[in-house]
Amino acid sequence: MHDKIKQLLTEIQAGNFKAVARGITIVENSLPGYEELLTLLSNDTTSKVIGLTGPPGAGKSTLVSALLKFWTQAGKKIAVLAVDPSSPFNYGALLGDRIRMSEFYNNPDVYIRSLASRGALGGLNHKIIEITDITRQAPFDIILIETVGVGQSEVEIAGLADCSIVALVPEAGDEVQTLKAGIMEIADVFVINKADREAADAMYASLRIMVHQKSTDETEIPVIKTIATQGVGIAELDAAIEHFFKEQHTDTEQKLHLYTEKCWQLLLAERMKDISKTDLKKRIADSINKKGFNLYNLARDIASATSNK
Amino acid sequence: MHDKIKQLLTEIQAGNFKAVARGITIVENSLPGYEELLTLLSNDTTSKVIGLTGPPGAGKSTLVSALLKFWTQAGKKIAVLAVDPSSPFNYGALLGDRIRMSEFYNNPDVYIRSLASRGALGGLNHKIIEITDITRQAPFDIILIETVGVGQSEVEIAGLADCSIVALVPEAGDEVQTLKAGIMEIADVFVINKADREAADAMYASLRIMVHQKSTDETEIPVIKTIATQGVGIAELDAAIEHFFKEQHTDTEQKLHLYTEKCWQLLLAERMKDISKTDLKKRIADSINKKGFNLYNLARDIASATSNK
Repeated sequence: MHDKIKQLLTEIQAGNFKAVARGITIVENSLPGYEELLTLLSNDTTSKVIGLTGPPGAGKSTLVSALLKFWTQAGKKIAVLAVDPSSPFNYGALLGDRIRMSEFYNNPDVYIRSLASRGALGGLNHKIIEITDITRQAPFDIILIETVGVGQSEVEIAGLADCSIVALVPEAGDEVQTLKAGIMEIADVFVINKADREAADAMYASLRIMVHQKSTDETEIPVIKTIATQGVGIAELDAAIEHFFKEQHTDTEQKLHLYTEKCWQLLLAERMKDISKTDLKKRIADSINKKGFNLYNLARDIASATSNK
Repeated sequence: MHDKIKQLLTEIQAGNFKAVARGITIVENSLPGYEELLTLLSNDTTSKVIGLTGPPGAGKSTLVSALLKFWTQAGKKIAVLAVDPSSPFNYGALLGDRIRMSEFYNNPDVYIRSLASRGALGGLNHKIIEITDITRQAPFDIILIETVGVGQSEVEIAGLADCSIVALVPEAGDEVQTLKAGIMEIADVFVINKADREAADAMYASLRIMVHQKSTDETEIPVIKTIATQGVGIAELDAAIEHFFKEQHTDTEQKLHLYTEKCWQLLLAERMKDISKTDLKKRIADSINKKGFNLYNLARDIASATSNK
């Protein structure tokens, strides 16, 4: 097992897509060897992790396509982790969309992986940190994580990604005012996609005002207009991302928070692994109606009986 | 400490209200001796635990007053645990309401305790199981737990109470159709309070139909009309509760679920007590930027370093 896992990691580090896929599958499903694989991972990697989030209908997957085209033409290697139940990169996609994207499925510089999302609203996959850490081992220039911007996923992605892009689409005039709380805090770059729509200019103007009001120093969050279907604005978007990486001040608070939560969950799983709720329920059921039953004694007994294992 | 705690329990069992209050305070705030107190509790108690839940404005506290009047006249001893942020029994109450209830604060057969609710929406106090178990040690005939029916509290109360009363108030004609999912499953008795309102009869009729459709055998959930401010229907409500206790089939599934969750939480707290998230975060912060940092190794190291304690 040990040699096999080491071998797998070596292949991942060499950029073998099948090995990357295998590694992700092992970790996502907690298959034998997954813990060893994780403990072998190097922290010394250079992939840039970019999060792309936004509401359904913002054209995120078309943006991904346009970015993939731009980046591959620039000679870059990219991994896409799609955690968006409505994404055409994901299994539940419409056939038409999948065909449109299919060119990238055969591109040797692009690795695409659909991931199950946690819950119907598109929360991040519960192993997304591990999966990103695996993907980071391979020589990708960019790891792009696409998530649908609902629920908690934006905040999680902000901790995971080095740069978070928030994609919006012009619709009702007052939409900018109703941006979900917290989205301003996580966005490193705003994109207004479908910028040929009538409401785009008004949205751009009000988003710029908002960004300006929120900016604490001379650096403002850039707002980029794109028409992803035509590739319009993609070079500008890439430039904004590049600029962000160049100027990036080390703000690791979100990452620290995310890693602390993950570490806590790992510890908790480790320490509770000898107990299942089903067994616990059986044990309580067996004694709950007996004279002398005491829930707190039972918990204490189990804790002390198992603490020396 | 040991003798003091034993002495306290003896006083609680003798029905000393001050001792009951002290016991609840110790457990609610995890004061020294709380664990010992909990492990000494007897399971062999006879108090009936009744849950009263319903939306804000259903007149729950007036119902409580009317029930207290009825029960004390019948010679019963009652404890009220009020976990309703809008309840006049609670601290945030309007002065007028508090004065109206004040007669019971001086009644030697009635013990009233306000409890902080978890979160703004009135979730149950996180120590409600322990507090109920403490209260159960005293010779109360009835422990009435008043909660506001929003969020998860109804489901929790169903596991905690031997009999769950759901109080409704006639308003819009179609309100019965929009009863929150799950409320039918937890109600052992329905009350339509403020039954002198115009919409009361329509609500009564549609609730009866709903109850009839949901009934699996000859026993239907009773629907009682009350006007709590005038004491109307309170004898009928008491009779319905009495009847429920007489006919009660042993359905411990909800209680088992609740106790399993509580036991799990107790075990988890026990096993994680040597680690704080603050310390964990500090530890991660110290090493996250070092070469060779690996989150999974860190978690494993902490787990193995502390497992033999």
